[in-house]
Formats: sequence, C-alpha cells, structure tokens
Amino acid sequence: MNELREKVLTLDTMNLCVRRVEYAVRGPIVLRALELEQELRQGVKKPFTEVVRANIGDAQAMGQKPITFLRQVLALCVHPDLLKSPDFPADAKRRAERILQACGGHSLGAYSVSSGIQLIREDVARYIQRRDGGIPADPNNIFLSTGASDAIVTVLKLLVSGEGRTRTGVLIPIPQYPLYSAALAELNAVQVDYYLDEQRAWALDVAELRRALHQARDHCRPRALCIINPGNPTGQVQTRECIEAVIRFAFEERLFLMADEVYQDNVYAEGSQFHSFKKVLMEMGPPYAAQQELASFHSISKGYMGECGFRGGYVEVVNMDAAVQQQMQKLISVRLCPPLPGQVLLHVAVSPPEPSDPSFAQFQAERQVVLAQLAAKAKLTEQVFNEAPGIRCNPVQGAMYSFPCMQLPPRAVQRAQELGLAPDMFFCMSLLEETGICVVPGSGFGQREGTYHFRMTILPPMEKLRPLLEKLSQFHTKFTREYS
Amino acid sequence: MNELREKVLTLDTMNLCVRRVEYAVRGPIVLRALELEQELRQGVKKPFTEVVRANIGDAQAMGQKPITFLRQVLALCVHPDLLKSPDFPADAKRRAERILQACGGHSLGAYSVSSGIQLIREDVARYIQRRDGGIPADPNNIFLSTGASDAIVTVLKLLVSGEGRTRTGVLIPIPQYPLYSAALAELNAVQVDYYLDEQRAWALDVAELRRALHQARDHCRPRALCIINPGNPTGQVQTRECIEAVIRFAFEERLFLMADEVYQDNVYAEGSQFHSFKKVLMEMGPPYAAQQELASFHSISKGYMGECGFRGGYVEVVNMDAAVQQQMQKLISVRLCPPLPGQVLLHVAVSPPEPSDPSFAQFQAERQVVLAQLAAKAKLTEQVFNEAPGIRCNPVQGAMYSFPCMQLPPRAVQRAQELGLAPDMFFCMSLLEETGICVVPGSGFGQREGTYHFRMTILPPMEKLRPLLEKLSQFHTKFTREYS
Repeated sequence: MNELREKVLTLDTMNLCVRRVEYAVRGPIVLRALELEQELRQGVKKPFTEVVRANIGDAQAMGQKPITFLRQVLALCVHPDLLKSPDFPADAKRRAERILQACGGHSLGAYSVSSGIQLIREDVARYIQRRDGGIPADPNNIFLSTGASDAIVTVLKLLVSGEGRTRTGVLIPIPQYPLYSAALAELNAVQVDYYLDEQRAWALDVAELRRALHQARDHCRPRALCIINPGNPTGQVQTRECIEAVIRFAFEERLFLMADEVYQDNVYAEGSQFHSFKKVLMEMGPPYAAQQELASFHSISKGYMGECGFRGGYVEVVNMDAAVQQQMQKLISVRLCPPLPGQVLLHVAVSPPEPSDPSFAQFQAERQVVLAQLAAKAKLTEQVFNEAPGIRCNPVQGAMYSFPCMQLPPRAVQRAQELGLAPDMFFCMSLLEETGICVVPGSGFGQREGTYHFRMTILPPMEKLRPLLEKLSQFHTKFTREYS
Repeated sequence: MNELREKVLTLDTMNLCVRRVEYAVRGPIVLRALELEQELRQGVKKPFTEVVRANIGDAQAMGQKPITFLRQVLALCVHPDLLKSPDFPADAKRRAERILQACGGHSLGAYSVSSGIQLIREDVARYIQRRDGGIPADPNNIFLSTGASDAIVTVLKLLVSGEGRTRTGVLIPIPQYPLYSAALAELNAVQVDYYLDEQRAWALDVAELRRALHQARDHCRPRALCIINPGNPTGQVQTRECIEAVIRFAFEERLFLMADEVYQDNVYAEGSQFHSFKKVLMEMGPPYAAQQELASFHSISKGYMGECGFRGGYVEVVNMDAAVQQQMQKLISVRLCPPLPGQVLLHVAVSPPEPSDPSFAQFQAERQVVLAQLAAKAKLTEQVFNEAPGIRCNPVQGAMYSFPCMQLPPRAVQRAQELGLAPDMFFCMSLLEETGICVVPGSGFGQREGTYHFRMTILPPMEKLRPLLEKLSQFHTKFTREYS
C-alpha cells in the first residue's frame, strides 16, 4: 500500500480544453526571463546587467508614475480617517465621500452589486455619452468587471454552444491578443482566423472577413466577430469607413460584434482618430442602430492610467436580447462582484476633474505627459526599426506595441526546427539570453505562414528605449549573419 | 429591411450550461429586496422602514468596522506619499515599503506574477506552517486568487473532462454553498449530492459519502470531493476523526479533495476547533500524506477581516501532479493576476502584527471584538430560533450563518405550488414583503425532499439581531396560522 500510485489528476485525465490553452504573453519566454533575473540577483555573470520586460503592456512596471488624483481618491476610500487630513484636495475628498456613500456599510470592504456600484455605472454611461458626441448610454447596459479580460470571457461564455459542426465559431484577427485564442480553447469554441493586411498598415479588409467566414461555415457555426481597435499587437487605428463596413458585414452575416476598445485613449498618429463602434453604429441609423448586437470593452489598465494591478474595466452591451442580458447578470453574480478598488479608479478615469476643480491642472498635466511620451516612443520605435536592415515596422498609430516583421535566414529556421521551436521563438530566446531584452514571438499572436514577427512594448523610459531598439536591431543583424 | 428580426444571441441560441446556472444568494429574492429599497427611497409606504440584507456573508455591509491596520498598510501602498505622514505607525510603513519593493515599478498599478507576489506567497506559506503546528508549506504550491471563488473554479476547471457516462462527477455537500452547483453547471460536470445529517448537527457521515459515490458511478465518473468546513450554510465544525475518515475514504476511492476552509477563523462553539485538512492529512502519515491530492482554499472576505470587496484569497495545492500544476499556472496566467489590493490585505491577514510591533495591541483588540461579537450572535441566533414553535436550529458552531429547519403547513405548500414557487421561497418572499428581512430559501442550497429551511446570516449588529430574530419567528407563527 506504500508504493506511489498514479495521481487522480494527471495530464491524461485533466480537462483537455485547458491543456490546449496557450498564452504567449506570459509563456515560456517570460518564465525564462524570471529565471535570468534570479540568476542575476545570485551574481551569475551574464552579457547584460538587467532583464528588460518589453513583453507585456504594464506601464507602471516600466516606470510610468500613477496619476496622483486617482491614487488620492482611492487612498481616501480605503482609509476614510484620511478625510480629516489637510494633505488631500477638496475634490478628492468629495469624490471619496460620494463613493463611500454608495458602498454597503460605507466601506470598500462590502460587496457591491455584481454589475458594479450603480453610481459608477452611471458615471461610465455619462463618459460614453460624452465620448460619443451625445449619443445616449444606459447604465443598465454597463457591467463593471475584473479588468477587460473578465468581461470579454463573460460575453464569449454566453455565445458558446453546439457540438461538432454546430459548434460556435468566433472570428478573431490575426495577429490577435492571445486572450481570445486562450478563451476560445478553454470554452471549446472554434477560432476562425481573419488576417489583417500588413502591407496596408494592418488594415482590416471586409473581403478577408468574408473569406474567413465562408470557409468556416463548412465546419462550424460562426456567430461572433471580434475586433481590436486600436490594435493589439498591431497598433493600427481603424478608419470610420472601415468600421462602417465591418458593421454592415456583421449585420448581413448575423454576427454578434465584440469591440475590444481598451486602447481608446492611446492614439498617437497624425490623422488617426478613435471612433467607437457604438457611435458609428448609432450614426448609421436603421436598420443597424436598433438591431446590431454589440459589446464594447474598456479598461483602467491601459490609456494614460496604466493601473493594471487593480483589475478594473467594463463592458457596454448594445441591442442585447433582454432575457440574455438577465442571464449575463445571473452569471456574473456567481463571482459576487468586481474588486472595489478597481471600480473606484474606473470612476475617476471616466469622470476626471473639471476645469473648476482644484485638482484639474495637475491631473491634466500628468495625463498629457504620459500621452505625449507614449506618442514620442511610438514614433521613435517605428523610426529605429525601419532603419535596421531586415526589419520592417508599420507605423504605431495607437495602443502600446510595435509588431515588426523580420527576415530570418533559412539556416536559422532550420536550426529552430531542429530545436523544436518556432523560428521567431528561437530568435526571441536567443535575444533574451544575449541581451536581456524580453519580447514575445509573433507566433504567440498568429502571423501569415512563413513570416516572422515579435511584439515589443513601447513602454520603456525614453532614455532607455533608443538604446534598447538599437541593441535589438544590432542583435538581429548579428543573428542573421551568424546563420547566413 | 427595417423590420425587427431575431437576435443572434437569444435564450435559444445561447450557452445552455450558462442557462442552467443558479445562484440563490443573489437570486430573485435579492433582486426584489433591491426594488423594495428603491421604493422606500421613493417614499412608498411599507410595513417596515428598512430592508435588512441577511442573505449574504457581507460583514462590513452590516456595520462591522474594518481592522485599522489592514487599511493603513493598504492606504500607504496605494498612495506612497503617505509614507512621509506622521499619522501612520512605523510597522504599517515598514510593511508597505516591503510590499512596494516587491511590486513592478514599486507600484500596485503593475501586474504581479499570475500566482501572486512571491513575497506574499511566502507569507502565506509561513502562516499555514504556523497554523498547522510546524508542518511545512511550500510557497510554490500557493496561488493567490480573486477571492476564494476564483481559485475554486480554477481547480474545478482542471478536473472536468469526459462526455456522457464518462463526465466528471464532483461530490458536494447538501446543503451546499451554491458557487459549487453553479460552477459545475457552467462546466457541464455532474453534481453528485451527499447529504449532511441534520439530526446530528449537520455531521458528515462516510456511509452517506459511500452511498452517493456508488450511486453516481452508474452515470458519471466521480473524481473529486468537496468539503466545506466550517460549513456554509450549515455552520458545523468537523471533528478531527471525521476529517480522518473523509481522507481515508477519498484515498480509497481515488477522489481529489477540495477543502473550502474560508471560515477557519470563525469557530465559536465550546469544544469545537478548526482542523485543517492539510494538517490532518500530513499527520496521518503514509500512504496518505505523500499521495492524497488536496486543494485548500482561504479568503480575506470572512474571518475577522470581512474584506469582501477587495476580492482576495488563495489556494494551497498538496500532492498535485507537477505537470498539472504547470497547467494550472498557465491557465491563471491568461487572466494576468489577482487584484493587488486584495493581495496586500491577504499579506496582513496571514502575518498580523507581532507583540513587539506598535500596532499589535490595537490589532488584537479589534480582532477580538469582532470574533467575540460573532460568537455572541451565533449563540443568540440558535437560542431565539429554538424558542420559536415550528423552527429548529442546530448550533452555529462556526462560519456566519444559521440554517434553521421550519415547518410549513400543507396549505402553504399548496399555495406555493399554485404560484410556481418552492414552498420555502414562498415563505421567504412573504417574509421580505411584510418585514423587510431578506434571507435565502433552503432550496437555493439544497435540502432533503420535504424539509424547508432558510439561511440567515448572524451579521446584523447585536442590538438589531434579537428584534430581527424575534420578528422572523413571529412572522413564521403568523404565516403558519394563516395557512392552517
């Protein structure tokens, strides 16, 4: 009886859908980066002195300072004794008092209703209405969430059904943010790839949507279309015309639209402008405006806030069937509520100080500094990469990433195959080992067969970014020479 | 083209597993309570002046004050400018500095690793080791989570597989906390009920476990056994002998053990003591200690903390297959990380001030007040209910709820059936409409056919609790008379 026996839960007996999940942004390359950091701390000699984590859109980890007013309001809510302190501005105190009034027992320690504090849902509705030039938003259609990821998975859960050839198919862009592929794998839905056009700055082409859809209809039932705008990892910002065409397509083909708009504040390129799917949909009028189903997602993790660690976000649903919306309400109630601190930060992000408020000037100044720096970094990234032989980088119109295409010599591809690695994974691993720069291979996001990319955030501080970009470019040249 | 057409996502086309989900703790009765509160605010006349939400274990919503030291440390982490303030004790500042050092960019705004800040996982391991009389705990086996619910669902996800008669079955107690039934429905696993013995103060009987298991083997593949100790909604605290017997049973029958121990600090009855499954398992020695797979869950929402709104918790896995544990790591990485504020509060809860620390005396005093009041409320609840004719209440040995059995006259049962309601739902709805007291019907947790219960928290403030209990008892008498 004492000998070891097989475990109950093993790779063979576990959930196969979970086994199929992949998430490159925190995958093997990041685990190796953590090991290297540990080795550096233990004094192991390396050809670099620090690991630079350019793998994930984590602004504050790269040195971005939090916006003071957000943290002031939250600190007051966490520890209301501070409401007596002279060190906090009056408008921060007013905010905190208003939020605490809306909390059970006037405390962030109480659960909120599952869709979030009513007051904050109303703030979000006003924000959307202002953003969309006065088009109304209904607080009852807004569900706060534990980061945008949580809300995206909730909506996908509602959509998934069927077996075999009737399984739900969901169209996602390639390259994509791998939350989508991971969630679809876990839910046993069919991932339907449509390719963005790298030659036209990652534009979305309706002909390609149509191709992907019609091909998918042979083996599954496509029912939803996901859009990421501004694009992650690709950084493109969609034109109004493109969005209209997508909406027309979704309407004609009977697809539920999911618009991942978490980078709506992150638009840098001249001539580019963020258009929300909601606004464009409403302005298109009948038959679209009153019928096309849409869910739009937003987050406090990106924008100028960068408050990833607090896990706050929301989804607005538009034209959702009322009974389904009740089911959604029920589903989220099982997990009780999104974390209250994230709700508080969302409140401030959607209703920033007004010009008459004491905190207005500082808030605006801090916000502008962050956004101006991001814009400068986006430009610098494109420029340095495009000066490098064998690397081609589309303009970073928005979001927080570059996704350059690189040439890899056939011998490097062959060597990677011998090692059982995707060629771009082989490149990124070599880069990490030699330079300490951690970026994510394009294969983790999807790319056209035979092309190679990597995703690098534009977040390192300005003074570090140029040397980093140059180091990476030089490494690519050296790597190419080594395998030529 | 302008007429309304069928939506893409309807009750008929949506995920049927999600449709089957039920969660009574925030179900129809609570929605009605919210409406009543709204009506009261609008000046509608009711036979009561306030709605008392005794439906959910939300201590701070019922007036419990947060522990000062927890909030001080968190406020310092949220807004590090406060580290210069003379109004915070030195030990709170030391804690905050130590935590911020362990955060990316020294900020709570950065993501942590997906299993939580390493430092805090080490704190949790030390806490478990202390709690379990020195039996070691490995930080690598600890995963922080977004409340205990999140971790419970993660482990269930790993376990679920198969189709038809090979579907995973999971044994859960009846009555149960409905997160379990909801998660199993959503994951399309088979819920296997074992009944707690109400006549023996909700004791768990291995013969009943065996009956449930053997019956279930006809139609599914039972692979896990869930235990809630102290019990929710039933309040019993398991004896060491019982836990040993359960472990032996799980080992013999090859079941993965899930121990929901979120009420481990909430034990009130004389002679009752909390024994962790981990400790008992380890002390049983071979063959159990090195082989039986176990996951144990804890939370900051209960205990003396009651910090529900921050969504913090953890799971410790024991004897889990290493490759499966890697899969778990990968799965949680898709959702990035648990909210940092919840991680910070967990840190304090598992490593409270030491006797030499300036905050020790106040912390201990606040903690004792909360626990002593809960103990007094547990006793009062049992006593008042047992004085009422037609109500019988087991001792509330632990946790935060009473789950009394009540007699309902046949005419009330008949009337409920006419209304399409479970009889105890009919009672609870009538109670809410006439008294404003919101409790959850036993049918939401499961109960033996033909018996009727409700779950009521013991959380209302002492001065309100006695009148509430008496009002409820009197309403039951009146209700019984009305339908006799």
